[in-house]
Amino acid sequence: MAERIERDTIGEIAVPADKFWGAQTQRSLQNFKIGEEKMPELLIKAFAILKKAAAQANADLGLLETEKAEAIKEVADDIIAGKLNDHFPLVVWQTGSGTQSNMNVNEVIAFRGNQLLEGKSELRLHPNDDVNKSQSSNDTFPTAMHIAAVLAVTNDLIPAIGAFRDTLRKKEAEFADVVKIGRTHLQDATPLTLGQEISGWRSMLDRNIDIIEESKQHLFELAIGGTAVGTGINTHPDFGANVSAIIASETNQPFKASDNFFHALTSHQPFVYAHGALKALAADAHKIAHDVRMLSSGPRSGIGELIIPANEPGSSIMPGKVNPTQSEALTMVSLQVIGNDAAVGMAASQGHFELNVYKPLIIFNFLQSCRLLGDALTSFNDNCAVGIEPNYETIEKLVSDSLMLVTALNPHIGYEKAASIAKAAHQNNTTLKEEAIKSGHLTAEQFDTYVKPEEMVAPNVKSPKK
Amino acid sequence: MAERIERDTIGEIAVPADKFWGAQTQRSLQNFKIGEEKMPELLIKAFAILKKAAAQANADLGLLETEKAEAIKEVADDIIAGKLNDHFPLVVWQTGSGTQSNMNVNEVIAFRGNQLLEGKSELRLHPNDDVNKSQSSNDTFPTAMHIAAVLAVTNDLIPAIGAFRDTLRKKEAEFADVVKIGRTHLQDATPLTLGQEISGWRSMLDRNIDIIEESKQHLFELAIGGTAVGTGINTHPDFGANVSAIIASETNQPFKASDNFFHALTSHQPFVYAHGALKALAADAHKIAHDVRMLSSGPRSGIGELIIPANEPGSSIMPGKVNPTQSEALTMVSLQVIGNDAAVGMAASQGHFELNVYKPLIIFNFLQSCRLLGDALTSFNDNCAVGIEPNYETIEKLVSDSLMLVTALNPHIGYEKAASIAKAAHQNNTTLKEEAIKSGHLTAEQFDTYVKPEEMVAPNVKSPKK
Amino acid sequence: MAERIERDTIGEIAVPADKFWGAQTQRSLQNFKIGEEKMPELLIKAFAILKKAAAQANADLGLLETEKAEAIKEVADDIIAGKLNDHFPLVVWQTGSGTQSNMNVNEVIAFRGNQLLEGKSELRLHPNDDVNKSQSSNDTFPTAMHIAAVLAVTNDLIPAIGAFRDTLRKKEAEFADVVKIGRTHLQDATPLTLGQEISGWRSMLDRNIDIIEESKQHLFELAIGGTAVGTGINTHPDFGANVSAIIASETNQPFKASDNFFHALTSHQPFVYAHGALKALAADAHKIAHDVRMLSSGPRSGIGELIIPANEPGSSIMPGKVNPTQSEALTMVSLQVIGNDAAVGMAASQGHFELNVYKPLIIFNFLQSCRLLGDALTSFNDNCAVGIEPNYETIEKLVSDSLMLVTALNPHIGYEKAASIAKAAHQNNTTLKEEAIKSGHLTAEQFDTYVKPEEMVAPNVKSPKK
Amino acid sequence: MAERIERDTIGEIAVPADKFWGAQTQRSLQNFKIGEEKMPELLIKAFAILKKAAAQANADLGLLETEKAEAIKEVADDIIAGKLNDHFPLVVWQTGSGTQSNMNVNEVIAFRGNQLLEGKSELRLHPNDDVNKSQSSNDTFPTAMHIAAVLAVTNDLIPAIGAFRDTLRKKEAEFADVVKIGRTHLQDATPLTLGQEISGWRSMLDRNIDIIEESKQHLFELAIGGTAVGTGINTHPDFGANVSAIIASETNQPFKASDNFFHALTSHQPFVYAHGALKALAADAHKIAHDVRMLSSGPRSGIGELIIPANEPGSSIMPGKVNPTQSEALTMVSLQVIGNDAAVGMAASQGHFELNVYKPLIIFNFLQSCRLLGDALTSFNDNCAVGIEPNYETIEKLVSDSLMLVTALNPHIGYEKAASIAKAAHQNNTTLKEEAIKSGHLTAEQFDTYVKPEEMVAPNVKSPKK
Repeated sequence: MAERIERDTIGEIAVPADKFWGAQTQRSLQNFKIGEEKMPELLIKAFAILKKAAAQANADLGLLETEKAEAIKEVADDIIAGKLNDHFPLVVWQTGSGTQSNMNVNEVIAFRGNQLLEGKSELRLHPNDDVNKSQSSNDTFPTAMHIAAVLAVTNDLIPAIGAFRDTLRKKEAEFADVVKIGRTHLQDATPLTLGQEISGWRSMLDRNIDIIEESKQHLFELAIGGTAVGTGINTHPDFGANVSAIIASETNQPFKASDNFFHALTSHQPFVYAHGALKALAADAHKIAHDVRMLSSGPRSGIGELIIPANEPGSSIMPGKVNPTQSEALTMVSLQVIGNDAAVGMAASQGHFELNVYKPLIIFNFLQSCRLLGDALTSFNDNCAVGIEPNYETIEKLVSDSLMLVTALNPHIGYEKAASIAKAAHQNNTTLKEEAIKSGHLTAEQFDTYVKPEEMVAPNVKSPKK
Repeated sequence: MAERIERDTIGEIAVPADKFWGAQTQRSLQNFKIGEEKMPELLIKAFAILKKAAAQANADLGLLETEKAEAIKEVADDIIAGKLNDHFPLVVWQTGSGTQSNMNVNEVIAFRGNQLLEGKSELRLHPNDDVNKSQSSNDTFPTAMHIAAVLAVTNDLIPAIGAFRDTLRKKEAEFADVVKIGRTHLQDATPLTLGQEISGWRSMLDRNIDIIEESKQHLFELAIGGTAVGTGINTHPDFGANVSAIIASETNQPFKASDNFFHALTSHQPFVYAHGALKALAADAHKIAHDVRMLSSGPRSGIGELIIPANEPGSSIMPGKVNPTQSEALTMVSLQVIGNDAAVGMAASQGHFELNVYKPLIIFNFLQSCRLLGDALTSFNDNCAVGIEPNYETIEKLVSDSLMLVTALNPHIGYEKAASIAKAAHQNNTTLKEEAIKSGHLTAEQFDTYVKPEEMVAPNVKSPKK
Repeated sequence: MAERIERDTIGEIAVPADKFWGAQTQRSLQNFKIGEEKMPELLIKAFAILKKAAAQANADLGLLETEKAEAIKEVADDIIAGKLNDHFPLVVWQTGSGTQSNMNVNEVIAFRGNQLLEGKSELRLHPNDDVNKSQSSNDTFPTAMHIAAVLAVTNDLIPAIGAFRDTLRKKEAEFADVVKIGRTHLQDATPLTLGQEISGWRSMLDRNIDIIEESKQHLFELAIGGTAVGTGINTHPDFGANVSAIIASETNQPFKASDNFFHALTSHQPFVYAHGALKALAADAHKIAHDVRMLSSGPRSGIGELIIPANEPGSSIMPGKVNPTQSEALTMVSLQVIGNDAAVGMAASQGHFELNVYKPLIIFNFLQSCRLLGDALTSFNDNCAVGIEPNYETIEKLVSDSLMLVTALNPHIGYEKAASIAKAAHQNNTTLKEEAIKSGHLTAEQFDTYVKPEEMVAPNVKSPKK
Repeated sequence: MAERIERDTIGEIAVPADKFWGAQTQRSLQNFKIGEEKMPELLIKAFAILKKAAAQANADLGLLETEKAEAIKEVADDIIAGKLNDHFPLVVWQTGSGTQSNMNVNEVIAFRGNQLLEGKSELRLHPNDDVNKSQSSNDTFPTAMHIAAVLAVTNDLIPAIGAFRDTLRKKEAEFADVVKIGRTHLQDATPLTLGQEISGWRSMLDRNIDIIEESKQHLFELAIGGTAVGTGINTHPDFGANVSAIIASETNQPFKASDNFFHALTSHQPFVYAHGALKALAADAHKIAHDVRMLSSGPRSGIGELIIPANEPGSSIMPGKVNPTQSEALTMVSLQVIGNDAAVGMAASQGHFELNVYKPLIIFNFLQSCRLLGDALTSFNDNCAVGIEPNYETIEKLVSDSLMLVTALNPHIGYEKAASIAKAAHQNNTTLKEEAIKSGHLTAEQFDTYVKPEEMVAPNVKSPKK
């Protein structure tokens, strides 16, 4: 493999000739052979958005020559477009400030930028003095974290939740009149409609969108401008605000400079909070996916109220088996997110003095949670939810058998007499009506008047929220 | 021990004669001898607030005789005042719907209420038919959970954070001019003021108050009105809204009935989300408390920049030792909250069909987290933070020795030359100034002009937010 | 309240006259008003066992007068017997070394011991110089942690698992011939016997006992002898070994002094490991309890293969409802243990230099996990497991309906043909036999020969392990 | 892209012509577009080891033609050698039984095996009827999980811990005589040697090897032979034992068939337990790495007792900065493992009936934890630990300044007088000796006799364990 020699303040080092990175990236590659988890592409893209904005802001403030700024911006655009992915080889498990990835970006932009300047200008980019001008890893890395997180939530996760929610809203309307048994404690309870049951799921997703959007607001505050320790040393006082404004404009999201850079460098509270919202979604997603697989259990010896699409042979040994595989993927993803949440919270507790050095861990887990939830919800929606159908025959049978219809008698004969009727029916394996009449507390006509499953579901049904 | 005989739909059972509870409470006591963790008093109080409101709402709707309602309300007031604590003996680890605690409240109110009615009226209260009228455990327990959580956050936790924040704000102003070494990666970095460092902590608390208040909003939606499965069976359609309005008025908090009771019974998303905000506070509290103990480490062989109050002998073997014990309590509490967060998230993922039956676990952990954080922050504030003083001599010495003042040279001679000066000073155990002059890149005058710690801290300092 | 004045190296302080504790305990009470979680009684008892052994060892080595040693031992015995519980008021959330609880024990023993010495001897006990002689909080607290943990596991937890396991073993034998449908992915699968299904649960418990016993071995190594930092300063070189031997003899457990006290003071690896075994039990307990509630779901619209005892009215609104409340308590406990596990692991990661100062947190969670698991398993066993009965009719119906009996045809006609038969039966709502004959791949006689549920369960059934 | 048509029991589907997989793999690819986390290569390799053993066992039992078995074994060997990695494209987030990855292996072996058979034999392999013969996903996937986990622990993790431990053992001996200040609560404490401090770390690793090896034993029990639900349907009674024996021989690890397949399919207790041991290692690794970075903090304003290698420029803005980057990578990895542990425990709690369907999640996290810990320990060892050197000057200064040397006076003048001397020295900023003499409790000669740091470290030092 052809090589070229690069140098940094430590000394010289050989770098693959066809790669744009420099000495510090190469050192990281050699010093951190840990795992396979690459620094997420979305974080690199966020870094490029930041470097582009920083170049512009530096030029606007008269701190950087226009030609240099233009070169930086051109390379940044290529990174944003995904054209230079091969030049960002570093893993997550590196220095905890992400300095090496900041330098990777600086080095690639300087190297490639200098190729662009070649022949056009005498000026040459230096990774630190130009590309990193007015910046530090300590403010750029958390800035890129926030940008990447907002993009992941906004562009990937929220639309995925929304699409699933929309499917459920359709099902909710479609099955609004399907009266079915309710279940609490996994035991038979009073009836509700299938539409109502689905409305509970839909309502969870509505609220998940709300809280994720709400918690996202706190990610708009950027660390840029704080540089090394939050004082903004070596930076123009307007730099942070100016860069943030450009980023806001580029991304169409209301980013702004933090009003306390000391907080911004050392507390990752916004990530703990926002990941808490992701965990709330994960918990609900687990619940919904698990309900679906229980309701579609069977086909003959389970609950069997729902029919889900058969997307693949279910078993390598049991012929004809259909399994709720989309539920399984989504429930696994949910538990992974709950695990990630533990890692994020713990990492955030470990800031020391002016810097928290668990940053790559935090953004890695946050973006993985967004990606997994978004993809798994989309997969569940497309391959399962849209095809869910009621098994009308089973639903009808299970609700009409239920002893919990007795609850409708409470207002008429009181809880205790109603209980004794239900118990008698259970013991004698008879119907509620038979036992009700036998009890002498009601006539057959009264029973028929009081106990109507379809009237037990109605009183407080609300119209969908949105 | 004197006993009386009580009965429920299962049969008869002996109850201590001096206790107001009934058969179902007694059964729970006997069937769930698990641990020592009692159902939190605040939850019982919240239940009483709810029962009082429900009695009023039932009476208003013409569903309950006024005399009965008044009796219920009178007992509820005694519970709220803490006068009947001995009558709520049940543990957390009972039925997952909290039915037994709902019945405990119903039974105590009915029993004691009937004592009050004695001689005044022929009417007698039934725990289910009267005290629980229009209600189910399935909607009352989560309603009480929300009330208790809002009260804990509002009355205990937020004020504790606020008091600590106020202390820090004072210290921030007081030490605004104390220039000290900054530290990133635990290594010497560029300087900042002690006021700035503390402003980072203060800013964390400001934001924690914001996000806890924000996440609290979602707890205002109450399940009451949903009864057994969310359909509101056996309940007047206005009951939930009316009860919620009375609770709002009683507590001065904007509670309202949920717009989707199916969600309210089976998803505990609001708790996962709000506990995520508690976890963010826990992470920051751990960071602050740990910074304080590191900064006050020594007295001779540590960092020693801060002096903290000596509240007790530190060691049973090392005479004269002073330990950062308040930091230790607060950091332990923080990790407990992070552990609780895992339990809450997992429990919320386990809703089945129309009900999540991990409710007691969720509220137990939530209230414990609020209590521990509130108490530990108050303890830290009162016994440590208020007494924090700088060790001016040490602070002065450490900042003036620092090699990272070299950073101020970057804009003048570039990163690489500055790096070589710092390295030379480190290797030769000399000062930056000596090496700067020796390097030929600067004169002594230039060095003195460029490198002024007090000017390295200023540019982006913001005034406190609030 | 009557008071007396006590003093320590900080100065004087008033103490309730009727309490045996001294100045340092009183300071802790006043400085750490955090939560309600008291230092566990079992830990105090373990401390007393240790103090008794230390007094003996000191006397044996000629370091402590016999009369003093006897006085210490007499008070320690009273603590062990639970007679002095009121004198240990401190909470968990104190100094992270547990120094204050060590001093609480020292103070109570000295005070009460001096009462005993009064009139008998001129000698007087000093909390530090006598009761704590040759010791430090830094080695006594972790020693007491290990003793308490071993006692909790040995005396409470293991017997509770064993009793539940024995119940399951009985059920396993009793229902060895009850052929039922198997379920994988919650979907119908090939049959097994109810005895086999229960044997899976029983086997989990057998293994849980094994791994908990195994992990317990690492708790036998004691820190005693390491004193302040692990060097054993101010301690006779034989002290640690001698004390450990006495403790071993008193408790009948093979305790011994650690071979590396530096490890013993600062790493709580043995607790992380042993709590991992508790978590494995919690995970299995959750699984078993959840299986039981799913199998007993219904009574009419669920799976309904098992009948569980009805211990209490299930619902405050639905008359006659029976809920799997013991399952609910056990599953909640399981998740609490999983949450505790997160706290323990994180706390163990936070040792600094010669000491980990999250010790009270660790032992509190460990003992809570033991207690909750032990109690909840006992409760589940006594109130549910012993009364589990099959619903033979339902079991018979569900297995005979199942389409997965088709699996028995694989070896005869291959997976693909078998799959098409199962699918046809599913689509046409017919029996496998009808479709098998219709397919032409088998005769009716062949079908009856090949497909016998009772022969599909046998081949690899193993006899119970123990 | 060229395609060919494959079919399964669902129907036909197009597959890339250059790939060996079949219809079910292709369906999974299309139905589970979730994340980027591929099923780990080591799991695929473990599957190949299993399939090879199964083919042999089937042939030995006369159930499979020798030519077929040979073809299967030949392809399996290629998979083991990593030659067919491109043919295993599935992600972790698929069906929770791993059926699709089992089928991926079956399909690749059948397809490629049939190419090998071409021209040599009339026989053709069927993915289900031949490659999967006598097996089910339900027993093969957990079997492959156990094999992969044992290989990861044995070949990768344990050697990495061992190498690090060996480095520490060398340093321990090398620095056995370097007396330094001890620190508890982060505060100055009595002295110890640097060798002793390192022995604590080394001892943690010794014990981590022990517990990981111990917990690994439980992974030797294999599910193979249990097939669909644990009864071993469609399998020869000797199959599981025979396959296990072949695997044991191939891997040189004592694998054996489980004695309870019902347990083996539905409980993943061995993973919870073994991952608990990984978490214990993670906690210790965090502690050690954090101690190293605190001890090497500075260079001028921190503790600075250790000098660590400078592997890269530490800062993009602060020239000449050296950061403890290897500590940062290792501490991040440790917290990731603690997060993974939460996911594994939770997943294990979710087994339903005869199968736990969170298997891919469990093995993914387990193998990631092994990989990250192994790599990060190796990186820390090679790039940091081997180069650790004491800063003798600093160490000497810090220990001689310490006030905690006063502890040596306890046996001579008692705790309280010693405390007053230490306090006086602290308040007056004098030396202990000055204050001791001034106090009148000791002469200068006595002080010099009693207070010798080098004699305060010796008494209980133990020789290294191994």
